[in-house]
Amino acid sequence: MNSQPKTKSLKTFNDPVYGFITVDDPLLFQLIEHPHFQRLRRITQLGLTNLVYGGANHSRFQHAIGAMNLMRSAVTTLRHKGIDISEEEERAAKAAILLHDIGHGPFSHALENTIVQGVHHESIGLQIMHNLNQELGGQLDLAIAIYTDQYPVKFLHQLVSSQLDTDRLDYLKRDSFFTGVSEGVIGSERIIKMLTVHEGSLAVEAKGIYSLEKFLVARRLMYWQVYLHKTVVSAEFLLMNILLRAKELAQSGIELPASASLQYFLYQGKALGLDDSSIWLKHFVKLDDFDILASIKQWIDHEDALLQNLCKRLVNRRLLKVKPLKAPLTDAALVALRKQGSDLLGLPEADMRYLVFQKSVSNTAYNRNDDRITVLHKDGSASDISEAASLFQFSSMDAQETKHFLYLPAEVPFQ
Amino acid sequence: MNSQPKTKSLKTFNDPVYGFITVDDPLLFQLIEHPHFQRLRRITQLGLTNLVYGGANHSRFQHAIGAMNLMRSAVTTLRHKGIDISEEEERAAKAAILLHDIGHGPFSHALENTIVQGVHHESIGLQIMHNLNQELGGQLDLAIAIYTDQYPVKFLHQLVSSQLDTDRLDYLKRDSFFTGVSEGVIGSERIIKMLTVHEGSLAVEAKGIYSLEKFLVARRLMYWQVYLHKTVVSAEFLLMNILLRAKELAQSGIELPASASLQYFLYQGKALGLDDSSIWLKHFVKLDDFDILASIKQWIDHEDALLQNLCKRLVNRRLLKVKPLKAPLTDAALVALRKQGSDLLGLPEADMRYLVFQKSVSNTAYNRNDDRITVLHKDGSASDISEAASLFQFSSMDAQETKHFLYLPAEVPFQ
Amino acid sequence: MNSQPKTKSLKTFNDPVYGFITVDDPLLFQLIEHPHFQRLRRITQLGLTNLVYGGANHSRFQHAIGAMNLMRSAVTTLRHKGIDISEEEERAAKAAILLHDIGHGPFSHALENTIVQGVHHESIGLQIMHNLNQELGGQLDLAIAIYTDQYPVKFLHQLVSSQLDTDRLDYLKRDSFFTGVSEGVIGSERIIKMLTVHEGSLAVEAKGIYSLEKFLVARRLMYWQVYLHKTVVSAEFLLMNILLRAKELAQSGIELPASASLQYFLYQGKALGLDDSSIWLKHFVKLDDFDILASIKQWIDHEDALLQNLCKRLVNRRLLKVKPLKAPLTDAALVALRKQGSDLLGLPEADMRYLVFQKSVSNTAYNRNDDRITVLHKDGSASDISEAASLFQFSSMDAQETKHFLYLPAEVPFQ
Amino acid sequence: MNSQPKTKSLKTFNDPVYGFITVDDPLLFQLIEHPHFQRLRRITQLGLTNLVYGGANHSRFQHAIGAMNLMRSAVTTLRHKGIDISEEEERAAKAAILLHDIGHGPFSHALENTIVQGVHHESIGLQIMHNLNQELGGQLDLAIAIYTDQYPVKFLHQLVSSQLDTDRLDYLKRDSFFTGVSEGVIGSERIIKMLTVHEGSLAVEAKGIYSLEKFLVARRLMYWQVYLHKTVVSAEFLLMNILLRAKELAQSGIELPASASLQYFLYQGKALGLDDSSIWLKHFVKLDDFDILASIKQWIDHEDALLQNLCKRLVNRRLLKVKPLKAPLTDAALVALRKQGSDLLGLPEADMRYLVFQKSVSNTAYNRNDDRITVLHKDGSASDISEAASLFQFSSMDAQETKHFLYLPAEVPFQ
Repeated sequence: MNSQPKTKSLKTFNDPVYGFITVDDPLLFQLIEHPHFQRLRRITQLGLTNLVYGGANHSRFQHAIGAMNLMRSAVTTLRHKGIDISEEEERAAKAAILLHDIGHGPFSHALENTIVQGVHHESIGLQIMHNLNQELGGQLDLAIAIYTDQYPVKFLHQLVSSQLDTDRLDYLKRDSFFTGVSEGVIGSERIIKMLTVHEGSLAVEAKGIYSLEKFLVARRLMYWQVYLHKTVVSAEFLLMNILLRAKELAQSGIELPASASLQYFLYQGKALGLDDSSIWLKHFVKLDDFDILASIKQWIDHEDALLQNLCKRLVNRRLLKVKPLKAPLTDAALVALRKQGSDLLGLPEADMRYLVFQKSVSNTAYNRNDDRITVLHKDGSASDISEAASLFQFSSMDAQETKHFLYLPAEVPFQ
Repeated sequence: MNSQPKTKSLKTFNDPVYGFITVDDPLLFQLIEHPHFQRLRRITQLGLTNLVYGGANHSRFQHAIGAMNLMRSAVTTLRHKGIDISEEEERAAKAAILLHDIGHGPFSHALENTIVQGVHHESIGLQIMHNLNQELGGQLDLAIAIYTDQYPVKFLHQLVSSQLDTDRLDYLKRDSFFTGVSEGVIGSERIIKMLTVHEGSLAVEAKGIYSLEKFLVARRLMYWQVYLHKTVVSAEFLLMNILLRAKELAQSGIELPASASLQYFLYQGKALGLDDSSIWLKHFVKLDDFDILASIKQWIDHEDALLQNLCKRLVNRRLLKVKPLKAPLTDAALVALRKQGSDLLGLPEADMRYLVFQKSVSNTAYNRNDDRITVLHKDGSASDISEAASLFQFSSMDAQETKHFLYLPAEVPFQ
Repeated sequence: MNSQPKTKSLKTFNDPVYGFITVDDPLLFQLIEHPHFQRLRRITQLGLTNLVYGGANHSRFQHAIGAMNLMRSAVTTLRHKGIDISEEEERAAKAAILLHDIGHGPFSHALENTIVQGVHHESIGLQIMHNLNQELGGQLDLAIAIYTDQYPVKFLHQLVSSQLDTDRLDYLKRDSFFTGVSEGVIGSERIIKMLTVHEGSLAVEAKGIYSLEKFLVARRLMYWQVYLHKTVVSAEFLLMNILLRAKELAQSGIELPASASLQYFLYQGKALGLDDSSIWLKHFVKLDDFDILASIKQWIDHEDALLQNLCKRLVNRRLLKVKPLKAPLTDAALVALRKQGSDLLGLPEADMRYLVFQKSVSNTAYNRNDDRITVLHKDGSASDISEAASLFQFSSMDAQETKHFLYLPAEVPFQ
Repeated sequence: MNSQPKTKSLKTFNDPVYGFITVDDPLLFQLIEHPHFQRLRRITQLGLTNLVYGGANHSRFQHAIGAMNLMRSAVTTLRHKGIDISEEEERAAKAAILLHDIGHGPFSHALENTIVQGVHHESIGLQIMHNLNQELGGQLDLAIAIYTDQYPVKFLHQLVSSQLDTDRLDYLKRDSFFTGVSEGVIGSERIIKMLTVHEGSLAVEAKGIYSLEKFLVARRLMYWQVYLHKTVVSAEFLLMNILLRAKELAQSGIELPASASLQYFLYQGKALGLDDSSIWLKHFVKLDDFDILASIKQWIDHEDALLQNLCKRLVNRRLLKVKPLKAPLTDAALVALRKQGSDLLGLPEADMRYLVFQKSVSNTAYNRNDDRITVLHKDGSASDISEAASLFQFSSMDAQETKHFLYLPAEVPFQ
């Protein structure tokens, strides 16, 4: 015994969702301390959702730490069931899930569709992982193999990325906690207790089937109630239109105050590719929510009346109204509305496509073509959840649910 | 202003589920103080479920208070939406929900199927309400009319009893809280916020559809994971068999220690009817969990070896094992198992039907023939949830799900 | 890897306070399965407290499982800090905490002061542990040594029994959860994280001092708000008086329906001793809340008018009123009140001491003479919490706080 | 009854702490919609605390809404106790608490002490309220009178601002929720239930004394564990030093990228006064966390090596180490450390005061000179909590607790 004991844990995180989370592996600690990972503190998990659910200010940093915590639980559970997982595999799986969002830009997918076009956030993430791996002398080799599904132990990849991965198990629980949408709460802990491995792949014990059904329904609920909430989506389209307009102005050589990194993406002219990532990645890893929103706040005073209008709306939460449509409007109807808007707002008709537009949002509850959820029965047989669960109409869960909406300023009358 | 203010509230209950619940109506207070209602403190909401979910010791008393609290919320919400509900109607609806379980015997339905045969607990409840009403000089007239659906304002009855009543909205939330099955949590508060009235009947605003789907799935999960959990059901069958055996012995004139009220039901010989309730009801309202379990503990020392065996199993939690069956066993197979059990346990073969038996349990997720759940759309039209919700295979939710099980002592080998 | 993995855990408990608790040690599993331990399912942790806090129906069974869970956390934490704890020591410490309440009778201390006089519940517990140890071939030797503080590794005993043991850390949190008194919530998890060992004894790292202060205040709050709540205490005195009256009647040879075990204690005439525990212990281990309350319900119909009166009050929750007194009443004043009560209730004056009486209740927030709470500073020095914490007036925390109350039927006017 | 009922509530907020909060008053709704109030969405309640407690990203917007919700509870409770509060008074009290933080700058007090010197955030807030009142045609007259304690009904002011106001009752609960420091949880609901009025002033019923003690201790715990957590404070000093350095550079005419509003405060040269608020307030109300942090991110590339160094530390979370000091260092010792730091970091010795410095932090648990907490006893007498509560050493609670710390880069060795 030792009256001045030395602590092995390097760092303890206090998480309102799970309580204490301890990191006692030096590699994981190093990753967390890295500026690339610290940047995730400044990227909210749910972007503009806080305009509707005021509590939803949690960051991707916390989500990544939480998902790593669930990875620890999953590994412990599987080992309890006699599955061999080495220390090295555990470390690599944790590193992979820690880094799974490392390539995320600010405000979710807003940049990908506007000023960072041509590369998907997952490709960016992988590129960043390779760079980190180089810095760390190859210590991430196994983590990257697991992440890219090139490691033969398939279930480790599935814990990082599948329809039942620790990413989803964390974010559904976390988003539900911070939004206050208590119905979205999923029994992450129970689902993890039910995990097992069948023929090398992740599976769920049959007695967990009700929890799985619950998980699929909670996920669908969170989609329509939170992620695709019409006001949230309206705010996101507004943000994208701001960035598109800013890029348009930048490409015409008009000056726009912004951080150097944001300016890079506004002013450079071509689609990005992974080949030349050495050029643009150093700018990308500096971008976070603060660059974007601080610029938008400044653009309220920009001389471009449209940009001004759009930015004021976002900052002061005068979002575009959303009207559900049974069927998309005809082009003519849309043109007419834009004309009306142009008169009412005193903006050129050409600008009105930024303020009056229609969009569809869609979601699939369970994708049978994607990596499936396998249920392992007591007799050793396995089946897809869509066959094992009687409750759902899987043909419909499978299908995309699509909703059409019209977006327009409150000043423009409709219906 | 007043430096020694007088409190209007008569009583505040501290509920771990909702926080403070205040009763400030003298009639409701009188009902709660009545010995018939205080008896509900000694009847657990979930009977023997605490043998599996150790936290589930909550009483029907608390559930009734909680349901009354949700009735208050529902009335407030509906009034906010412009629905007229008078003070008197509110009081009556609260009284009705307070009393909805007043006829419940100890350990749920165990008595109805064994020693209190011939009358349903709801008929008993109604009879007790009439008696209370007489005591209270007719103050429960309106509450009884609402309870029995004879009051023209239909939605008030539906708040007391329907597929979306405050009874269910409370017990699902409460049972989920005390069992620790967090996935069963339903957004009672959100569903209540979505309630409205359509053509005099209770309806749910269309935007609440995801919450409803979630509610139906949570309910189904609670059924299979808690209420019909195989070990819980095994304990309940054991209890019923104890009571059946005790009745059998009593009818043969054998002496059994028990409280006077329990003895009444063991020794009286015929099916009960509401006509002669004046005779038996005074015994019934004295029965609670303590009569039953205290007797069972004493019967461990009874001379009847079978009764002894059954009682010991329940008290020491040596329950019958439960084996899922794809199809029911043949009579011959069952006879063979009983013969084997008889040899192994040293009990007469005739007694073995109490220890080796098969049963089916079933549940229906949503009953389209029952009082339906109506969804009110923004355009003023209304539809049944089974048409409004796309997710579910309502043909299957509608159908009973049935599972077959074999129950037998651990000593008797099977499979 | 293994497609049909075998589970190592023997049993998982679902606890609403901590979530899943897994027991994977065969000895601990055997203890939990033992009828003596299963009996704790039928003893509520807080006795009659549920007459005030309706949610407080949790059992000593759950508390013991919960405390074992905290022991697991504490062991893990200490090992992380470099303290050696062997597998065998861990198992023994867990067994000791599992069994720490095994000698508890129904309704807390009501029996000790009435019909089971002469032996303390902790002595009974120890006797039961010895019996279990014999049954288990000495497997509890180390657990008993830790429990009785005869094992040289002192901090293990302190985790079982001290002012900062896992017993308190569990019950404060659990009682606060089930009563709904959210202010009683203590950060068990955080305190455990701060535990360390100094010169062989349990200590708390200095940075945990605010958590300790909070713990002491929460504990005091729970005492006055829950454990010593005046209505709870009134119910407990009523129960004790019922048992005293029953014993008085029994000793006069009057017949009282009760279970055989309860009758043993009512009718046997002398103080109990540990020497003859072989006689009475077999009765004691059969007693639980059901024996007591079921008998009290039957005694409502007993011919003794006093017993009847007392029992009716408890069952129908017509408790004695409680009046705070600045100073105890004089004997004369008490006699006068009893005389008045005798007239009003039509009971003999001699009986009135069961219905009109005064009592004091007291509590000490922190006992400096008891096993102390040691704070370990960063510089390696240690001090008592009463010196380390500046906030409290330890002279007053140390002192017993005493309150005087008068108990009497609502029918008897006072003040 | 009405099949298409119209909703009276204007807006429902979904709060993870309290659930649904409904605003059905047009004036309050207008205040919430105002850009000045929307700005609070972009100011975190706890500034840089999220560098230690990752969940603490909640905004002042939510806090204000939550405090308004508690005001509603308090008014309801007091009315229940027979205290007259008019509709108009309720609306005004809610408006006052909604606006109580309207003058807050980004990152708590960081600006007040650096670049917005000369005016206190409460004076700024009052000025903004006056401006809003003008905009709203005097509708805030009563709210302002309550806020400034010029309305004769004193307890309304105390609900807005006192040692037991709805501000504290909300923020302690909320901060504890989002940080995950569960021990900080206070029973806001219970304290509010205990509120009453004595001689026109707010008081607490004597039975609430344990809750009050608990509240004072929880508050103290939150101070030392969260608000004054040494790493949090270190981050805040770093931020202040960044702003001081930036101002220093600005005053020397050096260019600094920043938003127009932030630039105003960096480049203007004199202390601010309320007299000329018309000049600077229009800039102030545009500042939020985004202006500050986005600039700091840009200053990482500034040519000033010191500014660069400080900004990099904050953004990448390479904070200054904190060493507790028994007594302040001598000037000589500090100079020596700075010299050493200067060599190690390659920065001029003169700059080292930004990187190596000592500070004291202090807190008072309960201030007897401030607006006191009054306890109302059953006999109608009243006393100060410091006399009513025996537990605390009020002489010490009263006294400031002061701790001395040394801050320095990890690169500079100390001890």
